[in-house]
Amino acid sequence: EEEKGEDDGELDNQWSNEPQSRHPALLCNQEKPFNAEPPPAILTGDFHTPNDLFYVRNHLPVPPRVDPKEYRLEIAKETGIGEGVEPIELSLEEIKAFPVTSISAVVQCGGNRRHSMASYKPVRGLSWKGGAIGNARWTGVRLCDVLKHVGVSGGNYGGIKHVQFEGLDADAMGSCYSASIPIETAMDPNRDVLLVFQMNGEDIPIDHGYPLRVIVPGAVGARSVKWVSRIVLSTEESPSIWQRRDYKLFPSNVDINNVDYESSEAMQDMPVQSAICLPIPGSTVDISSGFVTLRGYAWSGGGRSISRVDVSINGGKDWSVAKLHSNESQKPNRVWAWSLWEATVPVSACTGQLDIVCKAMDSSCNTQPENVESIWNFRGLANNAWHRVSVKTANNI
Amino acid sequence: EEEKGEDDGELDNQWSNEPQSRHPALLCNQEKPFNAEPPPAILTGDFHTPNDLFYVRNHLPVPPRVDPKEYRLEIAKETGIGEGVEPIELSLEEIKAFPVTSISAVVQCGGNRRHSMASYKPVRGLSWKGGAIGNARWTGVRLCDVLKHVGVSGGNYGGIKHVQFEGLDADAMGSCYSASIPIETAMDPNRDVLLVFQMNGEDIPIDHGYPLRVIVPGAVGARSVKWVSRIVLSTEESPSIWQRRDYKLFPSNVDINNVDYESSEAMQDMPVQSAICLPIPGSTVDISSGFVTLRGYAWSGGGRSISRVDVSINGGKDWSVAKLHSNESQKPNRVWAWSLWEATVPVSACTGQLDIVCKAMDSSCNTQPENVESIWNFRGLANNAWHRVSVKTANNI
Ligand SMILES: [Mo]
Ligand SMILES: [Mo]
Repeated sequence: EEEKGEDDGELDNQWSNEPQSRHPALLCNQEKPFNAEPPPAILTGDFHTPNDLFYVRNHLPVPPRVDPKEYRLEIAKETGIGEGVEPIELSLEEIKAFPVTSISAVVQCGGNRRHSMASYKPVRGLSWKGGAIGNARWTGVRLCDVLKHVGVSGGNYGGIKHVQFEGLDADAMGSCYSASIPIETAMDPNRDVLLVFQMNGEDIPIDHGYPLRVIVPGAVGARSVKWVSRIVLSTEESPSIWQRRDYKLFPSNVDINNVDYESSEAMQDMPVQSAICLPIPGSTVDISSGFVTLRGYAWSGGGRSISRVDVSINGGKDWSVAKLHSNESQKPNRVWAWSLWEATVPVSACTGQLDIVCKAMDSSCNTQPENVESIWNFRGLANNAWHRVSVKTANNI
Repeated sequence: EEEKGEDDGELDNQWSNEPQSRHPALLCNQEKPFNAEPPPAILTGDFHTPNDLFYVRNHLPVPPRVDPKEYRLEIAKETGIGEGVEPIELSLEEIKAFPVTSISAVVQCGGNRRHSMASYKPVRGLSWKGGAIGNARWTGVRLCDVLKHVGVSGGNYGGIKHVQFEGLDADAMGSCYSASIPIETAMDPNRDVLLVFQMNGEDIPIDHGYPLRVIVPGAVGARSVKWVSRIVLSTEESPSIWQRRDYKLFPSNVDINNVDYESSEAMQDMPVQSAICLPIPGSTVDISSGFVTLRGYAWSGGGRSISRVDVSINGGKDWSVAKLHSNESQKPNRVWAWSLWEATVPVSACTGQLDIVCKAMDSSCNTQPENVESIWNFRGLANNAWHRVSVKTANNI
């Protein structure tokens, strides 16, 4: 999650596989590796975020494009566990022979909204505003079907505790991106963990993991490994820094100088979240109609739905309930998609500034914290404090 | 959840089945129906709350004690749904013939800690302090096994959407307690919904549902129907007031006069919670050792674990991390039991008062709200604001 320094020139060729063009509206947080988010204002336009506007969070250079005919997914296991499990290599064609399914699911960076967490106290990491989140229609096969096929079964899964995913993206030393999820999450059909080859009905774009990526709905984006090429069934979590170090939350008195990385568990599921996408912060809003319209997104991890979004235009003194758009029905306990919301709030003509706030509640009655202070952590992760946007008003701009 | 008026004398015989003796330490919130909680201070003594000290939340008179040989559980279905499902009556013996399992799980009243929500603005309901929660070892059979046995199956469960539970407890008009859960929750083996006949290794006590009760781990207590005698497979939620009215959350501008009950969904899973059990509020604490020891509980609904409990003795200015007792290992994503916690915090000899605060974070990074204001609702439900306890200090009391 931390910013890496730019490459040193000698290794320039490791960046030769970056896409030739990326959408010009993407706001770049870092060039190498490429990290960019759309302006939040565009997110409320579509229930499914367009592929070319979906935030890109690369931890390493984009890997060479794989010939889909040559691609193989290796499934391996540590010795001594998973009795009856047969290591295997699967071609794309063989993967697509499993029952194919599609789900709408949000992927959100653990650092989404980090920018405003830094307003309290500096944090380490890319300064994402509210756009490091998107909702897409993912098409693929169930990881649990594939793992059952190779022989994973039984009450304790033959001692397998974690499923590690390795990407084709690697650093100059050849060390690849990797992350893991608990075997229970991987094998639970109701968790809908997928091996995905299509995003919004198209081959998955190179920036999003062509030809195959993992989608772990409800979890932090870092577990949805792109360009996945190897799955390791293990007694341990992935040894990568992205599992053992970077995506962990610590108390507010811990920083880079005194952190004990083993004292905290790796982030998996994400908390309830919401943000205002429109109006744009600092803009001037026409209130001659006597109303102002607010739009945004709300989502919760772990399959929980959004039960309510409350909005205020006077900093939280008075609240109204936003209308949730139900673009697509989701299954109970498996609500992976977001809820886009809209609220039209009466505003007095003499109001000079609107201090807009939003906060959501999820189906488990969880709420967002009022301020970043109480959840501040030195990596700036999982910022789900009430979202605040201030705008000026005008009559007939 | 609302207090009912005392009975009118004429109906006194409906109270003839109340247990002859209840534990004298229970703090009574209402005599008829009986509602009582233990002093929170005793909760931290045992990972499994003793049966006779477990909070009692009765909505109606205790029903006549059933002869276990005569007891029958009826499983019925609405006409037109659940093709292939055979309505059935099961004896206790037949129920115990399904695979028996035990889980440790918290049951918490939706109104736990309502008392302190009222400190902001009055609320309707019993004034529970922090003791309307307990953790017991429940032994029974899986509801999903029983429902599969009667023929519930398939992708959409033959159109069944909700599983309604009816208790033997009824009002003077013969109307029984009832509540429901979604069929997806009932049929998900990982949700561990049980039909329970033992509590902490003993026959379930009469106040807790003898001879059979439902346990819906992770959900509000109101769904764990006691004295269950009938299960109805339906397209609709239970029509009872406890499903359609009382256990729902509304925005802060809604009260009994303007509420639209259909505008909110029935509570199911509960949010992250924690409370300080020791020291006792208002007590005087000996700080001559230079330390004060705090104890309490933490829990989250939906199978989420507690990842951290933070405590403060100066109102939230400085925080330390509490030690979580891991009395029993829980399965990933199925953490139904609570975490008891303890913290020994250094305290300066000249501190006259301690303003103790605790707050927890769960495995989905959800946190407790700082104040009750932001979550206030007129029924006083789901109060999970930071818990605060003030005590005086003394050297060598
Ligand atoms: Mo991320
Ligand atoms: Mo309750």
